[in-house]
Formats: sequence, structure tokens, C-alpha cells
Amino acid sequence: MADQTGPTVSDIGEFPAIARAIAGRRQPRTTLVGPGHDSAVVAAADGRIAVSTDMLVEGRHFRFDWSSPHEVGRKAVAQNGADVAAIGARPVAFVVGLGCPPETPAAVLDEISAGIGEAAEALGAGVVGGDLVQAREVIVSVTVLGDLGGRAPLLRSGARPGDVVALAGNVGRSAAGLAVLVAGLDGYRDLVDAHRVPSPPYDAGPAAADAGARAGTDISDGLVADLGHIATASDVAIDVDRAAITPDERLVAAGAELGADPWEWVLAGGEDHALAACFPPGVMLPSGWRRIGTVRQGRGVTVDGRPPAGPGGWHSFSPGTSR
Amino acid sequence: MADQTGPTVSDIGEFPAIARAIAGRRQPRTTLVGPGHDSAVVAAADGRIAVSTDMLVEGRHFRFDWSSPHEVGRKAVAQNGADVAAIGARPVAFVVGLGCPPETPAAVLDEISAGIGEAAEALGAGVVGGDLVQAREVIVSVTVLGDLGGRAPLLRSGARPGDVVALAGNVGRSAAGLAVLVAGLDGYRDLVDAHRVPSPPYDAGPAAADAGARAGTDISDGLVADLGHIATASDVAIDVDRAAITPDERLVAAGAELGADPWEWVLAGGEDHALAACFPPGVMLPSGWRRIGTVRQGRGVTVDGRPPAGPGGWHSFSPGTSR
Repeated sequence: MADQTGPTVSDIGEFPAIARAIAGRRQPRTTLVGPGHDSAVVAAADGRIAVSTDMLVEGRHFRFDWSSPHEVGRKAVAQNGADVAAIGARPVAFVVGLGCPPETPAAVLDEISAGIGEAAEALGAGVVGGDLVQAREVIVSVTVLGDLGGRAPLLRSGARPGDVVALAGNVGRSAAGLAVLVAGLDGYRDLVDAHRVPSPPYDAGPAAADAGARAGTDISDGLVADLGHIATASDVAIDVDRAAITPDERLVAAGAELGADPWEWVLAGGEDHALAACFPPGVMLPSGWRRIGTVRQGRGVTVDGRPPAGPGGWHSFSPGTSR
Repeated sequence: MADQTGPTVSDIGEFPAIARAIAGRRQPRTTLVGPGHDSAVVAAADGRIAVSTDMLVEGRHFRFDWSSPHEVGRKAVAQNGADVAAIGARPVAFVVGLGCPPETPAAVLDEISAGIGEAAEALGAGVVGGDLVQAREVIVSVTVLGDLGGRAPLLRSGARPGDVVALAGNVGRSAAGLAVLVAGLDGYRDLVDAHRVPSPPYDAGPAAADAGARAGTDISDGLVADLGHIATASDVAIDVDRAAITPDERLVAAGAELGADPWEWVLAGGEDHALAACFPPGVMLPSGWRRIGTVRQGRGVTVDGRPPAGPGGWHSFSPGTSR
């Protein structure tokens, strides 16, 4: 746990706090100019750079009674890293804007920064710059830069009828973990951990692009919603095979204890940052990818040919319900 | 003024608000993939990309009774653009994280976004991505990507004894404008405008790098503080010629009306986003640059050989005071 009794951010002052946040971080070779200047400079070997940004707000995207500051930092990196992986790129650099109240313990900032730094380092990426400002709540604003390594980017708009829809990573576990936290249920540490720090299948994005995938996205808003973004952008319909995404025993068990429908977690739960991609028919799916559906002519997303949400919500797919 | 009576952000919902924020913006040729996918892709022609980030918080960095939302957006672009100009790069793309309370009028977000978009477009840069989240105050977190165009980046660490210290742009006007706003003084619209939306001399950064400058920074924390960053990073001393930075008649007039010392604005006022650079002796300064001092052996920043701030603060440089 972060030291709640030590000096606060306002005790230390802005510049030392920034220095603490970036001190001792190793920079990869792609960091041509690191922190300490007006701008950093990052290598962009193939003459392009992928970029995405996400903002996490205390009380909205994380709670310190549920997640440690270190976990918040790691989550911020994961969700940004997944955004570049989704288009087929590898994260090479992060910049971080941190806002916090002046009475925030400096140890909280240190641990958020350590989580960001360690997660970035594990990806071979540098934390190359940042800003620290006073705000009413803790805010972590991360921008990621990614290297496409010569690949054509996977857009949402490239899917064609007949394509295979495939998934890498998990869906529903983060949402289940959040429900477990809300209910205060014991015995589901694996699901809670999945909510605290998602584990996107980073390598699967570049692998999909290399294998000829035509469209891609990460699953951050929920499987149906994010496949819907591909369907809309590509002007196609997507049908998901119910059997390919059946909730696993952990989701079923947690759902039973909570009186919740695990299909809702699988179909509508975001934040696992799995990756979805559409491959031309006949392509051998690369390692880590599994087929979950088909692209068709039309519009919208169906599951086994039916709308995923009826008037009763996602319950129409619950085992044992008759709707 | 933004429409305070129209629909709020929460009336409209997150996705339409984002769509409104990026709709109709022209993208420059450097935007290879624009908004609407998991990541944007930006050209990095010389195989490198400069990057910097800044976070502006309502009540800390701007007030809506002093600045319009449009001006807040333009200011956010200016201060980020100056960070890449300072190292000799040109801004090519911006990504924007926006946080706001749900009751924020949608028109406020629209105008912030319009200000960001128009200011970026004026620089030939695209707004290529963003995130919109709920927060307790309005937060504008901007990351800029810059193109060095083959130039060696101007770092803070390259100054050498004997170098000429030069300035492009204004110092002290933003701080004076803020003092005018705080006091509610009339008749200084030029200074107030300088505070609301700084006008960094963007072209001066690349011009300095082309002319062989060895170090650079923007003046965001105040002239003495930012020259101090160069002095520290370069392990040198910097002496500023008092005559080269004498407050102009507008600063003197406002200072007289407010009972304030215009030297404090010039020496310690930030946010004008002027650029400072150190050139080898004998170099012809490029257009827009003027000599303001000399790099010497030693450490720290002096003005006419004296410490800029004594126990009495900056007043030692006031005309008519004897300290």
C-alpha cells in the first residue's frame, strides 16, 4: 500500500514530484531524447507513428479502495497499449499527464508512476514525458505512441462479407471482477485481478496484421459494442457464434453467486482489452486468435443470427432462461 | 459566448459529444489515419517524432469568467505547440483528453474543441484523436507530436560558455494580463489577450535549429526560471543584459496603475511561451531572434551580473527603487 502518512505532493512541490516520477526509469533505444527537455524525441523507424490517448479519472475509472495506485498506473498503460496493438502496432513510448489534489500523499503519485513505468518497461516502451498539475481528483491521462513496423494499420473500416471474425484474449472477466468488488464477494481474486489490471494480448495485434487481417479493434466498450463499431465503419453485419464465447466456469460460478447473468459480462462487459479482428476467409489464424463469428452483408451485430439484446437485455442468452 | 442554456454533455452522451468535437475538421496530409479507429497514424518523415504533453485544469490554468472556451482550446494548443517549437520541430498532430462534469453545456465542449481544432489547423496540424470523460472540473489534456524535419533537436543541455543567449517572442505580457484581470483593470486588452491566448513564435524554433543553435527552451515558467533550466542542464551560467529586456511602455503603464513591478512580469512571468536559445558566438541570429545575454562558465542566472532576486524579490531591478 502507498504510504498515507508521508509527505504530500504539496509538501514536495511540483518539480521534485515529476523528477521522482521519472527517476531511474530505463529508456529503450527508441527513446532518442528522454525526459528533461521541452519535448522528447522518439524513433519512428518506418516513417509513421501510431498515437492514442485515454484519460482515467478517480471515482469513474478506478477507486483507491479497490485498486492500488500501482495497479492504476499499470491499467492506464494496458488500456493505451491495447489501442495501438489493435491497429497492429507495438507501443514504443508513453507520455503521462497526472492531476491530483495537493493533499495527495507523494507515495500515491510515486506508485502510480512506478506502475506506469514498470508496465511500459515490460512492453519495451519508455515513459518519455509528463506533466503534473493540481486537480480536484486524481487524473491519469496517458498518450501512447506505437510502431507499426511497416505493417498496414488495422482499421475498423476494412472488414468484408465472408471474413472470419476472431478474438484474442478474454472478454467478460473485468466486468465480472467489478461486479465481485461491488458485491464484496470473496473467492474470485482472478476476476478481480482482471478488473484491476487487464492483460491485453499485445502481440496478437501485430500478428493479425502480419497474417493479413483486414480490420481490428480492441474490446473496451464490450464485445457487441466494439464489433458494432467495426460493422458500422465497414458497412457490414457481424454474426457471433454463441458457442465460441460461452462464459467459462468462473464467470458462471460468480454469476450464480451474484444472481447476475454471465452473458451480460461476456457480451457487454468492457475493459478486458481483448482484441478482435476480421481475417479473409481461408487465412490460418495466428497464435492466440480463435474464430468467434463471421462477417456478412447487412448491418449490426447478431449472436447466432439473433439480436443480442432484446427488451429483457442480454438475458435471452442465459442458460436456463426461456426468453 | 458558449450557449449555457442548450443541452449538456450528459444530455448528448459521450460518443455524440466526441463526434461533435472532431466533426468537420480538415486533416493535413501528415494524418495518415485520422479519428475513428483505435489509434491514429501520423507521418514521421525523418524517422523521428517529437512529443510533449500538458494538462490544463479549470480554476488552476484558466477560468471561464476570464477566458472563453474557445480561448482555452487555443491556449492549450499554443502551449503544447511551443514545446515542440522549442526543440526545433513543427507541430503535426494533437490528441486531446477532455474531462468535464456531466452538467457542462455541450456548447462549452464544442467551443473548446473548435478552439483546439482551429488553432491546430492554423499550424498545419491535425487533431487526430481524443477521449472524453466525466470529471469534477473541466480538464484539457493535450499531447502534441512534432516533426523535426531532419534537424538535431535543441536540448536544454547544449549551451556552452561564450554562446549568445537570444529570445524570440514576448516575456511578461501574459503575467501582466493576468494581473490586470485579477485587478479588474480596464484599458489593457492587449495584455489580457496575451494572457488568454499566447502567441508563441513557432517558426523561430526550427529557424534557430537551422541556424546552428545549441540549446533551446520555451519560456513557460518565467525567463529566469527557464534560462535556469538551460544553465543547470548545460552546467553553465547565463547572464542576461538588463537593457535587452527592459519592460515596454505597456508593462510600465500597467505596473504603475496596479502598483506592481513590471520587472517581476518580465523576469518571472510565465505563459507567454516565448522561445529562448543559445547560439554559438558569431552566428547571425535568424529573423525574429534578438540577443538578450551571454552564456558564461559557472552556474545560475544573473542579470547584469547580479542575482535577479534578492531578499526583496525582483524589485532590485525596478526603475526608481534604490534596493
